[in-house]
Amino acid sequence: MHFTSEQRLDDGIVERSFTLGEIPGILWTPEPAPGPMPLILLGHPPLGLHKMYPRLLDRARQAAADGFAAATVELPGSGDRPALAGVEQARADLRRAMQAGGPVGGDVVDALVLPLVELAVPEWQAALDALLALPGIGGPVGYSGGVISIGIRLARVEPRLSAAVLFAGSLVPATMFEEARQLTIPLHVLLQWDDEGNDRQAALELFDAFGSEEKTLQANMGGHAGVPRFAGDAAAQFFTRHLR
Amino acid sequence: MHFTSEQRLDDGIVERSFTLGEIPGILWTPEPAPGPMPLILLGHPPLGLHKMYPRLLDRARQAAADGFAAATVELPGSGDRPALAGVEQARADLRRAMQAGGPVGGDVVDALVLPLVELAVPEWQAALDALLALPGIGGPVGYSGGVISIGIRLARVEPRLSAAVLFAGSLVPATMFEEARQLTIPLHVLLQWDDEGNDRQAALELFDAFGSEEKTLQANMGGHAGVPRFAGDAAAQFFTRHLR
Repeated sequence: MHFTSEQRLDDGIVERSFTLGEIPGILWTPEPAPGPMPLILLGHPPLGLHKMYPRLLDRARQAAADGFAAATVELPGSGDRPALAGVEQARADLRRAMQAGGPVGGDVVDALVLPLVELAVPEWQAALDALLALPGIGGPVGYSGGVISIGIRLARVEPRLSAAVLFAGSLVPATMFEEARQLTIPLHVLLQWDDEGNDRQAALELFDAFGSEEKTLQANMGGHAGVPRFAGDAAAQFFTRHLR
Repeated sequence: MHFTSEQRLDDGIVERSFTLGEIPGILWTPEPAPGPMPLILLGHPPLGLHKMYPRLLDRARQAAADGFAAATVELPGSGDRPALAGVEQARADLRRAMQAGGPVGGDVVDALVLPLVELAVPEWQAALDALLALPGIGGPVGYSGGVISIGIRLARVEPRLSAAVLFAGSLVPATMFEEARQLTIPLHVLLQWDDEGNDRQAALELFDAFGSEEKTLQANMGGHAGVPRFAGDAAAQFFTRHLR
């Protein structure tokens, strides 16, 4: 892990850009550090860190206000990272299926999501290795948001993860329902009730499938990008309950 | 409204029992009063105030901690109030239908719930008249919990109600779905995902029907009486957002 820049934001948060091998990332920490800090990994959709930066910063500010460090890394195929050939093809297939108004085939979903999950999850784990080795960051660790299949896989394979906030999305490979059943950590799942790109029934079935003894579904009105402010507050309180 | 007893609880809350005509009720206020207080009406299932007292007191303590007064009245046919003949018959029919494992007919649900709604809602409105006339209680007014059909009707007909927390239950007359569509106040709806006495799909359809622009569904694991502590906290924050 190599830090490439550091700046102090107006509210005292220190933002450090880093690279982990070829992968860019950002770490936010409240200053002064309140002792060994829990860490929240900020997941995001595959639109590139630059585009997602304002929303990631909002979430990092909330984490810092609660005494947590927050960090994110670029997803494979996003931002300045090399495109994933197979995924580009699957994206084109997805666009075609959606423009035709027809259902999106399971093979298209698998081709779009599974390679991303396979590549991204080990990278998040490598980032976790490096982040937990930094002075001041002590865990426990939460994961929040982004591609729900990445969150499911990470929660299944990564024992250092203590709690996760997931955003319901319907492009979920069928095999992910089986992985969802194996989860045991506390989950807080956000669903936008009128999400234009989201099959509500599929999202409810996925929530039902999660094996965790503590899981909460919070559904709010509005479309994909319309998550209300108070839903962010509820997610923050979930982390405060589980990472302290 | 006639006060029949007053006691100061250990945390400084004043609990006053009252009668409103023949109807017993309880008012809790934080002392010292923090200026004109918002009021939360504490709904409850028709099991009698005496039986519900510990859970009502918990909710009243939360309200007082947030600077709100809280009040409740006995439901028609509950506690020491005269039984409702038609409802008793409907309850027997319900038990028979449930023991037979068959679906509960709409006529049984209507006979069980509609008379209770018709009688209870004007009583809650009369209680509201009396409570808002007391010094120190200024509104706005929230309603929380209990028989969901009473909450729906009260939210539909009572313009002084600013926000409501509703507990999903499935014994909902079909006409209530139409009333639900007419609601406009912010709603926070709690659903116990594995509620043995609750049809989850019906609860989701009722949530979908609510006309309010701001409505949140919070679903948690567990049976009917297993609402987790943090769900109460989220409901309290909903009221703090809307009654301040």
